Amino acid sequence: MTGTVYLVGAGPGDPKLITLRAVEILKIADVVLYDRLVSKKILSMIPKKAKKFYVGRDVGDDYLHQESTNDLMAKYAKTKKNIVRLKGGDPIIFGRGGEEAEYLKKKKIKFEIVPGITSGIGSATYTGIPLTHRKFASSVVFVTGHEDPQKSKEKVRWKKLAKSVDTIVIMMGLSRIGIICSQLIEGGMDKKTPVAVIQEGTTPQQKMITGNVSNISKLVTLKKIRPPSIIIIGKVVNLSKTIGWK
Amino acid sequence: MTGTVYLVGAGPGDPKLITLRAVEILKIADVVLYDRLVSKKILSMIPKKAKKFYVGRDVGDDYLHQESTNDLMAKYAKTKKNIVRLKGGDPIIFGRGGEEAEYLKKKKIKFEIVPGITSGIGSATYTGIPLTHRKFASSVVFVTGHEDPQKSKEKVRWKKLAKSVDTIVIMMGLSRIGIICSQLIEGGMDKKTPVAVIQEGTTPQQKMITGNVSNISKLVTLKKIRPPSIIIIGKVVNLSKTIGWK
Repeated sequence: MTGTVYLVGAGPGDPKLITLRAVEILKIADVVLYDRLVSKKILSMIPKKAKKFYVGRDVGDDYLHQESTNDLMAKYAKTKKNIVRLKGGDPIIFGRGGEEAEYLKKKKIKFEIVPGITSGIGSATYTGIPLTHRKFASSVVFVTGHEDPQKSKEKVRWKKLAKSVDTIVIMMGLSRIGIICSQLIEGGMDKKTPVAVIQEGTTPQQKMITGNVSNISKLVTLKKIRPPSIIIIGKVVNLSKTIGWK
Repeated sequence: MTGTVYLVGAGPGDPKLITLRAVEILKIADVVLYDRLVSKKILSMIPKKAKKFYVGRDVGDDYLHQESTNDLMAKYAKTKKNIVRLKGGDPIIFGRGGEEAEYLKKKKIKFEIVPGITSGIGSATYTGIPLTHRKFASSVVFVTGHEDPQKSKEKVRWKKLAKSVDTIVIMMGLSRIGIICSQLIEGGMDKKTPVAVIQEGTTPQQKMITGNVSNISKLVTLKKIRPPSIIIIGKVVNLSKTIGWK
């Protein structure tokens, strides 16, 4: 093996939210495997002579797709020096960076992981929702709304979450927002708890709607909110009215 | 008012983990108010002619100190163009960015918030702990170990957290690690649940110890772990043995 694979977070959408380390790596890339959520501006940082492959999750079946991405990393690590697996957001916050790192380790391929601003934090920042605020929140949970169907035990315990954390950030949960909110209410969450849904956060297309856990599902349909969207639940959502700045 | 105040996250320690937007702002700064956890390399990006003020939390009493930082922002916003409030990690993850934004809004001072890689995610990445991993974790909570004493209601519910989330990341909790772990065990957490404590994560001084919720408190004392440290609890900690890369 001659190459190093860099598992790199591209950040949440605004191309200026990428890190210096990520840019440094992109500039020396020989091969780049990139996701749907990586912006054009960031892709333009890649040298023209580098090979670029689109490996977004919408390409074919989920498991097959991960396998083919892994195969590509291993294939190019044999002949190329710098292979970049470029992901939207952060590699270890629902980014499969851990799984890919395990695969690379098993194949004895050298790797590095470069954090990125996760879309949950980016979207909250650009809408003026401080996920923690001393007066309102001592904890914030990031949770997937899209469960791995093969996972039997480690499921999201929505009913328990309802009473144990102050702010809930749900990623990839738009299509299940109704059932998630019902379970939170069943778990004891106040029906009036504020909710924000932010579509394409930190991009020029950013769009936010707000409501509460009992009406947000209807509002999402009414206002035609589409993925990629982040859902934020908790008292801190109200602060957006005051400190929304974008 | 002529100035804009930029509430900027400097990232977790490794100076290359700062964002392009943060660097762009630092380069045009007239005044910078910075924290203890901001690296020298990042401070060296500030123009020489800019005024720099150290406003770390160790300067005097906690509440007085926040007041004087606010006063400085307001004072310079009257005469200078670009005022930067530079923070370690991310401004809205236990960074008081929300409070400072509220203050600025009230004073009718223009502001912008720039996310940074939070030290919880940075430290986890650089020790090979994927905070979420499809096999082991569908949720990760970031929680403060250092409660606001004036807060009566919104306290961390450690016992409930024990059974509701898969990965727990505790910030500013080192001095209370013993009592926190006791409460988690009381709340039903398995005594063998793995724990990592990472001191000065992402810096050249990074140091990690691992144990479980019943013995980590002793190990912290024994191995002389000091702040700033991040505590990570959950099955994903075990993955560090395989995919630790730094």
